[in-house]
Formats: sequence, C-alpha cells, structure tokens
Amino acid sequence: MSQPGGVAADQLRAFVERIEKLEEEKQTIADDIKDVYAEAKANGYDTKIMRQVVRLRKQDSAERQEQEALLDLYMHALGMARPAIEDDQAETSSAA
Amino acid sequence: MSQPGGVAADQLRAFVERIEKLEEEKQTIADDIKDVYAEAKANGYDTKIMRQVVRLRKQDSAERQEQEALLDLYMHALGMARPAIEDDQAETSSAA
Amino acid sequence: MSQPGGVAADQLRAFVERIEKLEEEKQTIADDIKDVYAEAKANGYDTKIMRQVVRLRKQDSAERQEQEALLDLYMHALGMARPAIEDDQAETSSAA
Amino acid sequence: MSQPGGVAADQLRAFVERIEKLEEEKQTIADDIKDVYAEAKANGYDTKIMRQVVRLRKQDSAERQEQEALLDLYMHALGMARPAIEDDQAETSSAA
Repeated sequence: MSQPGGVAADQLRAFVERIEKLEEEKQTIADDIKDVYAEAKANGYDTKIMRQVVRLRKQDSAERQEQEALLDLYMHALGMARPAIEDDQAETSSAA
Repeated sequence: MSQPGGVAADQLRAFVERIEKLEEEKQTIADDIKDVYAEAKANGYDTKIMRQVVRLRKQDSAERQEQEALLDLYMHALGMARPAIEDDQAETSSAA
Repeated sequence: MSQPGGVAADQLRAFVERIEKLEEEKQTIADDIKDVYAEAKANGYDTKIMRQVVRLRKQDSAERQEQEALLDLYMHALGMARPAIEDDQAETSSAA
Repeated sequence: MSQPGGVAADQLRAFVERIEKLEEEKQTIADDIKDVYAEAKANGYDTKIMRQVVRLRKQDSAERQEQEALLDLYMHALGMARPAIEDDQAETSSAA
C-alpha cells in the first residue's frame, strides 16, 4: 500500500527525486561558474571585482548611475576619498 | 586596440558573458525547483519538512543516525520531549 | 557648511558612527558565542548538534513535536530508517 | 544523576543557556541597528547606500581606492558608463 500514515509514498518519492535531479543540475552549473572564475583568475583578472561587475550589469544603467552618485555624495560628506575616473583631469580634481 | 589600461576587453567580455549565461541557466533551474515545491505544496505536502528530507538524504545513513541519536541524547538531557516513533512502546518510554 | 549636495554631513556621520559602534558590539557578542561553543567542544560536546538544539529550543514544543512527527512520516514513506529513542526497546526496534 | 547516556546534563544546560543569553543580546543589538537605519531613512537617507558606506569604511582606504580603480577599469572595458565625480570636468569627461 502506498499511503503509510496518510502520505502517498510514491508521489512524495517522485517529488523528492525530481527535486534532487534539479539540485544536481544546479550544482553542476554552479561548479561551471566557479570554473570560469578560476580560468579568469588564471588569466590575471580580479574575480572579486568581476563578481561586482556581473552584479552591476544586472542593474538598469540609470539606476546604477543614480546609486553611484549617491554613494559619492555620502562618501564625500564623510570625507572618504574616491578616485576620480579615467580622465586627464583626475589628478587635478583629486588634488582639489 | 583591445587593452585599455592593461585589460583585454574582448577576453574580459567573453568571461563575463559566459558567467552571465551560466547564471541565467542556474536561475532557470532554481525556478524549476521552486515550481516543484509549489506543486508538492498544492498536493498537501509540507515543503519545509520536504526540504529537511532532501537535506537528510544527502547524508550517509550511518552518519545521519549517529547525529539523530546524539540529538536525542542532548534533548533528553535538557528535558525536551521528543516524540517516540511509530511503535507501541512510545507512550511507555516518554512516560519514563 | 554641513550640507554638501544636500546631505547634512554631521547628521549622516552621527548615524554612521552609531551604526558602527553597534556593529562592533554585535561582533564582540558573536565572538563570545563562538568562544562558548569552542569551550563546549573542548569539553567533548558536538557543537553542530548543540546548534541544532539551540534552534529547536526556540520553537514551541508542540510545534516542534508536530514537525518531528511529520519528518518521521516522510522519512518512513521514503524508506529512510530513523533510530528509535532512548528506551529499552531501542535495540529490538532498530533490529526489526 | 547528571549523566544520562554519558552527557553531563548540568554542564550541557549551562553551555546552552550561556549561548541563549548571548544570542538574545546579539538580537537586541541587531534590532538597535535596524532602528538606527529606520531613523536615518525617516530623515531622508538611502539606507542601502548607507550600508555600502559602512562596509566601505571597514576597508583600508588604499585598498578601497585600488578596488574602485579596478572596477572602473573593468566597467570601462565593458562599455558601462560610470558617473564622473563632483567636479566641473565631469560633463566633459563623460562626453569623451
């Protein structure tokens, strides 16, 4: 009989096995992601920064820029220096 | 040229895009897992307990039983009742 | 002036410093907890099981027993043996 | 007797109670932190950015600037615009 104590054993088993199969596939992909980061690292990339880039790329560009601007504002208010960006005026502005 | 500031833009982009593709696949599978739990719930199963079962099935059976025995021992020492299992002696033993 | 770009620098700093002070206190306590577990481990206790006991003690006893019963039911349905509890019949029942 | 099954019940109870007391204190502080953020939010601050600031302040300034520079470099390589900082040259440089 398939229902000890009110549980349909076959149905429960089917659910659990589907979940386990999917969990396995998910783990395989998680391992693949780890491998790509390892390969990038072996090529000289900073994977911590790469993870940050991947996270930022998920955000809408306008939203991201708004948050960056606010972060700059707060850090400036707290006297925390932030590096100016890739322009010739960078040295001038950071010296200001 | 592909290396602004020493970064090979094409290579970095290739790494990031591979990661993003894998992250997407991982998310799809995570959503599938959520769907199976939702389906199980709709069939009357307690998904919190199901998650516990899935976690326990990953453990070696001997290791799991050892941990269960230790948990029973600690709980007993602290006066926390645990339900006895599907046997006739259950009431007797919990009354001891 | 205290409001570069619309942020009251003094106020922001006050909030941030209060948070940092609290975070520090929280970290001190987290370290104390780690120390107690280390001391328990040095006395022969299994800290993984202790953590489980601490988690279970937060639950209402009736709720906990209900969940245990459900877990037993699911594991039984899936053919996963669970050890019987601290009674004289334990050996008999686990041999069955 | 204090040792059912080899566990010194009194000692185990003492450990568990010390942990629970510390966990309670930790929770109180965590609630206090939440309250400060809520107060900051009520004063118009963006708490998500505040959390980022608190995290960044834990880092050494040199280390933080190095990571920021690397992030800028990677984002630039991937064609992701970052806002220039609070200087007059900002518009010029982002147009470059």
